[in-house]
Amino acid sequence: MSWNTFGRSLRFTTWGESHGHAIGAVVDGCPPGVDLSEADIQPFLDARKPGQNKFTTQRKEPDEVRILSGVFEGKTTGTPISLLIENTDQRSKDYSEIANTYRPGHADYAYDAKYGFRDYRGGGRSSARETAMRVAAGAVARLVIPEVSILAYVAEIGGDAMDPANFDREEIARNPFWCPDADAAKRWEKLVDEARKAGSSLGAVVECVASGVPAGWGAPVYAKLDADLAAGMMSINAVKGVEIGDGFGAARLTGEENADPMRPGNDGPRFEANHAGGIAGGISTGQPVTCRVAFKPTSSIFTPVESITCDGEATEVRTKGRHDPCVGIRGTPVVEAMMALVLADHKLLHRGQCG
Amino acid sequence: MSWNTFGRSLRFTTWGESHGHAIGAVVDGCPPGVDLSEADIQPFLDARKPGQNKFTTQRKEPDEVRILSGVFEGKTTGTPISLLIENTDQRSKDYSEIANTYRPGHADYAYDAKYGFRDYRGGGRSSARETAMRVAAGAVARLVIPEVSILAYVAEIGGDAMDPANFDREEIARNPFWCPDADAAKRWEKLVDEARKAGSSLGAVVECVASGVPAGWGAPVYAKLDADLAAGMMSINAVKGVEIGDGFGAARLTGEENADPMRPGNDGPRFEANHAGGIAGGISTGQPVTCRVAFKPTSSIFTPVESITCDGEATEVRTKGRHDPCVGIRGTPVVEAMMALVLADHKLLHRGQCG
Amino acid sequence: MSWNTFGRSLRFTTWGESHGHAIGAVVDGCPPGVDLSEADIQPFLDARKPGQNKFTTQRKEPDEVRILSGVFEGKTTGTPISLLIENTDQRSKDYSEIANTYRPGHADYAYDAKYGFRDYRGGGRSSARETAMRVAAGAVARLVIPEVSILAYVAEIGGDAMDPANFDREEIARNPFWCPDADAAKRWEKLVDEARKAGSSLGAVVECVASGVPAGWGAPVYAKLDADLAAGMMSINAVKGVEIGDGFGAARLTGEENADPMRPGNDGPRFEANHAGGIAGGISTGQPVTCRVAFKPTSSIFTPVESITCDGEATEVRTKGRHDPCVGIRGTPVVEAMMALVLADHKLLHRGQCG
Amino acid sequence: MSWNTFGRSLRFTTWGESHGHAIGAVVDGCPPGVDLSEADIQPFLDARKPGQNKFTTQRKEPDEVRILSGVFEGKTTGTPISLLIENTDQRSKDYSEIANTYRPGHADYAYDAKYGFRDYRGGGRSSARETAMRVAAGAVARLVIPEVSILAYVAEIGGDAMDPANFDREEIARNPFWCPDADAAKRWEKLVDEARKAGSSLGAVVECVASGVPAGWGAPVYAKLDADLAAGMMSINAVKGVEIGDGFGAARLTGEENADPMRPGNDGPRFEANHAGGIAGGISTGQPVTCRVAFKPTSSIFTPVESITCDGEATEVRTKGRHDPCVGIRGTPVVEAMMALVLADHKLLHRGQCG
Repeated sequence: MSWNTFGRSLRFTTWGESHGHAIGAVVDGCPPGVDLSEADIQPFLDARKPGQNKFTTQRKEPDEVRILSGVFEGKTTGTPISLLIENTDQRSKDYSEIANTYRPGHADYAYDAKYGFRDYRGGGRSSARETAMRVAAGAVARLVIPEVSILAYVAEIGGDAMDPANFDREEIARNPFWCPDADAAKRWEKLVDEARKAGSSLGAVVECVASGVPAGWGAPVYAKLDADLAAGMMSINAVKGVEIGDGFGAARLTGEENADPMRPGNDGPRFEANHAGGIAGGISTGQPVTCRVAFKPTSSIFTPVESITCDGEATEVRTKGRHDPCVGIRGTPVVEAMMALVLADHKLLHRGQCG
Repeated sequence: MSWNTFGRSLRFTTWGESHGHAIGAVVDGCPPGVDLSEADIQPFLDARKPGQNKFTTQRKEPDEVRILSGVFEGKTTGTPISLLIENTDQRSKDYSEIANTYRPGHADYAYDAKYGFRDYRGGGRSSARETAMRVAAGAVARLVIPEVSILAYVAEIGGDAMDPANFDREEIARNPFWCPDADAAKRWEKLVDEARKAGSSLGAVVECVASGVPAGWGAPVYAKLDADLAAGMMSINAVKGVEIGDGFGAARLTGEENADPMRPGNDGPRFEANHAGGIAGGISTGQPVTCRVAFKPTSSIFTPVESITCDGEATEVRTKGRHDPCVGIRGTPVVEAMMALVLADHKLLHRGQCG
Repeated sequence: MSWNTFGRSLRFTTWGESHGHAIGAVVDGCPPGVDLSEADIQPFLDARKPGQNKFTTQRKEPDEVRILSGVFEGKTTGTPISLLIENTDQRSKDYSEIANTYRPGHADYAYDAKYGFRDYRGGGRSSARETAMRVAAGAVARLVIPEVSILAYVAEIGGDAMDPANFDREEIARNPFWCPDADAAKRWEKLVDEARKAGSSLGAVVECVASGVPAGWGAPVYAKLDADLAAGMMSINAVKGVEIGDGFGAARLTGEENADPMRPGNDGPRFEANHAGGIAGGISTGQPVTCRVAFKPTSSIFTPVESITCDGEATEVRTKGRHDPCVGIRGTPVVEAMMALVLADHKLLHRGQCG
Repeated sequence: MSWNTFGRSLRFTTWGESHGHAIGAVVDGCPPGVDLSEADIQPFLDARKPGQNKFTTQRKEPDEVRILSGVFEGKTTGTPISLLIENTDQRSKDYSEIANTYRPGHADYAYDAKYGFRDYRGGGRSSARETAMRVAAGAVARLVIPEVSILAYVAEIGGDAMDPANFDREEIARNPFWCPDADAAKRWEKLVDEARKAGSSLGAVVECVASGVPAGWGAPVYAKLDADLAAGMMSINAVKGVEIGDGFGAARLTGEENADPMRPGNDGPRFEANHAGGIAGGISTGQPVTCRVAFKPTSSIFTPVESITCDGEATEVRTKGRHDPCVGIRGTPVVEAMMALVLADHKLLHRGQCG
């Protein structure tokens, strides 16, 4: 985890700005002999792609990924896999007028304070465009952990939560919100549309479940599986909170209520609950690994917000460009990707130490 | 962040088991010339120390830290600082009967699944005893960032939250709960005592505020200040959730409500709110850095919980030993320490890259 | 230093195979505000470029570098700098017949033993083509250490050493051997030409001197400046030995002969000798940092060498393709680049810890 | 490789000064279930121990190692192994008079230039005493690679080389020089004794051979097995040069002479030579891994050397304390230890990536 690199055994480095020539990732440490082509990656990028409906930004990028290295005759060679997406829709003019203004809720001021200046075109390196490369790298990671099945979905938008009783896995792909509850999806359509029309925005909570993780992945003490998930999720743009298992809810339970009793099972224990989210002492228990991720509402809104110019003068910012009314929606494939990347890293780490 | 090491520029490695000979930490990368003696560390250890009142475990450890290297004539030399605490109260017999049983909510089963066996005495490496060394290392980190003031306190126990309107900094040291709200502290006394008597346990939420952090610490994209805080906090025993700024609350706000407007200030912007918790794009904004940490209720409870033996037989576990009815209380100094360690690391990282 | 990444504070990752689509590097951690364009990098690539005369391989690559990220309005932004060179001259057919044979002295067998298979086209990832990206990254590193001047040259070919008494810095660019001794260059012309015509190859020793390195860069104990130089140089293709200062020669001196006496100087000590190569205890002393690097003779020779096929059958290998009779010559700019990369990393590391 | 930590999968961190309370190492990432007690480590420390005969320093340290963590019921648990040696013979007074003088060839001036001051007692952190912890950590590493047999010996002292024709493995333990050539040992006895009596010192070359390393350990490009060996060896005190296989000698061979022909073998190829030292493309070939390490003569000599005081005044330094006339001799067990540590790290790295 250093600057722009994540992971230890399966490591990936991303680069590129929102409106530069291209964005890319280098995935290093991938096991050899894994079948891999662009076709394994593109569907995940398509799922994340903007401009698909009125609930996401209208910026249109084909986001076609190319594999430039690390694959030979359709298989990974064990050497670095370079992934690249050209930036084709670089409407820099949208941003020229805010070159000299700090957008509240964005990294503009922080970047200037750190680096002395910034690439202001579309947020430059701080743009959520970077997450496309996480999705691409995550697609590679999935192939490293074929035993694991990962599913993320939006559980809450603007404070309106789905009803777990309505959970229908098939429903997720049917609505534009990655929502497994058809009723909630219907409500959210109205909710998000209103926010969009009002020039406002909404936050969201994304849940992610990884099934099939064997017991034993993870490690004490600073490479805990949950610590890595927390870092990976919190590093996603607009994320402000991460929970493992019951998370903050666990803080409101008694010890009895929060217990995950164990019964004799066929292959290790059979757990009677999963408040812990499949992780104990930083190591997987064989139960599904679960986490919840809080996305703040999109900071770029049409409603004017008080701000200052780079010269320190008072001004107002209102965003007229193409933006998501709820970034959490498009964050869903990114959450899945980070889950895959963390788990794949830990699979290899565990194999290295414990054989 | 690898196995038992945390940090990049200011790095620390901890070692030791709950009931081994000793526990220790090696702090590497500390700037030279910092005044340091045991007296700078011991007060923080004393604050965390168990056995101080009936609300924390009755295990008694003097927890006297020794500095074995890295300091010469009262100043850090820039070479590794080795910190060591002898384990003096090693009542291993308390644990002998559970050597063959998996305690629900503990890492017992996960360790066995990973390593094939485990040091079962007091949880071995998975024991919260490890956090004493975080506190010790954190005391060193504080000296690296004298410009920063860090304060953590318990904001909620068993679902009963303090009232921010009652916040009184002086109150924190006056009650056994690190609670800045005298009324809440009174209620919690009853709450925790009841839980203790009932052989049950409670969760807690700890808040932490770091003031004086200049704008510009942190870095894109996987070394974000908030990503590191998330990892650092989530790696603490019993922690299941981390929030930066408004956290999950931000997911329930609109873009307008969540905005942190900026006004011209004397030295950079003056922010009119701090929903972001002092971090934008992974980089500090100059506002106080704030986070909230959820601790689950202590897993070791007197009430029997269904479990299995290491041989897979059904059994029940009830804990008769010395345990905290609410681990979150003693987690408070640990949260402060992790905040200090993350910030000190980023101060040095920033200076390295940006001068 | 992990797989395909080098450095800590200034880190770079390279990717790409000899005959893939492209090769590239990602330089991370570069200070912001450094003037950088392709014109700062291209001259160093041109110097390393193959096909320039009969003493180097006739493979022709324009090796035009593109900067894809990390630079805005002509200055580095502090975010990752992505560098890319398209592979244009991919004559894979030259290599097709050795797909099933292990070339002695090459990594063919080792890669197969490790990964189960390999990209055999031109050696794939094990090709010296990777060093082009070190040269590109090194050009960026030079800009981070403007106070340092780096010069590498060939000191010996095929056992025939230059005469230090003839050292003429201007001469280096005048002959095809980077040789500062005009007489030696003349002898080597004959020597290398004979080897080339005989289908044989020769080894070489490259020396490198970095002037202007201030005292204080480097660090104990496993991040010693000389340890990093050793790793960096040894990681260059065909390198089999590294010396700092007098190197193996120092092992043949007495303590008196090897001493570097110090006299009072204007700014720190004035050293009366530099057997140590400007490094003591892993930290620079303010003297020129010097090292020597041994390149083995090119393994690809026309003379047949006994070998085996991938199926374990006896065979013979003779290389008919385009190869350098003496790889050490083209290694010279690579040695300079690694020196720059190690020093720039340590400048930033030092600044981070010591301010 | 950061500051005081070496390795990736099997990592160790050392701490401690020559004349502090203690020195120690933390070995992290060790596989679980390895039989380990102090008795596995102590013999290697005893071999390195000073004061054993007149050819090494007369400083007397029992150097008794204690295992403080990471081992339970005689087996490694997979958690950090803390090793500690108390410093018992801390004759600080020997060094008090040089507190204000820079010893030529030592790190005194470099440390002051870097850190502003230094622990001058016995060289503090820059003392070769640190290498005791490498030997201790190396003893653990050996247990991780039982398939490998490591042997180091002194091949040359003061320019007088042993004769490979006289190589007798049994002889190594019979003379005080770790010399496998009885004739050379006899000559060296006179040579070293004369140097000692003259208040002078001599350099040495140590060779190390690791047999049983399977093909496939190591990795491109910056984690090459030879790059790691170079870093590990060069980081040893007084080392100025490292060669793999024929090293600088290879630079004087033709391609034909340097070839390692392969013939069909029972299990992979049978090599007919090993100029490469068992490594190709940074990856082991299954042949013995060989390296040579150059130690400079001890810098502390009785003969006066010109120097300056910390205040910049001219002075002379002559060392009256207890010092080795030839540090390379005691470096031999350290070379073995670093070989073991590098190989064990790569065994685990390889297993992690390739299964």
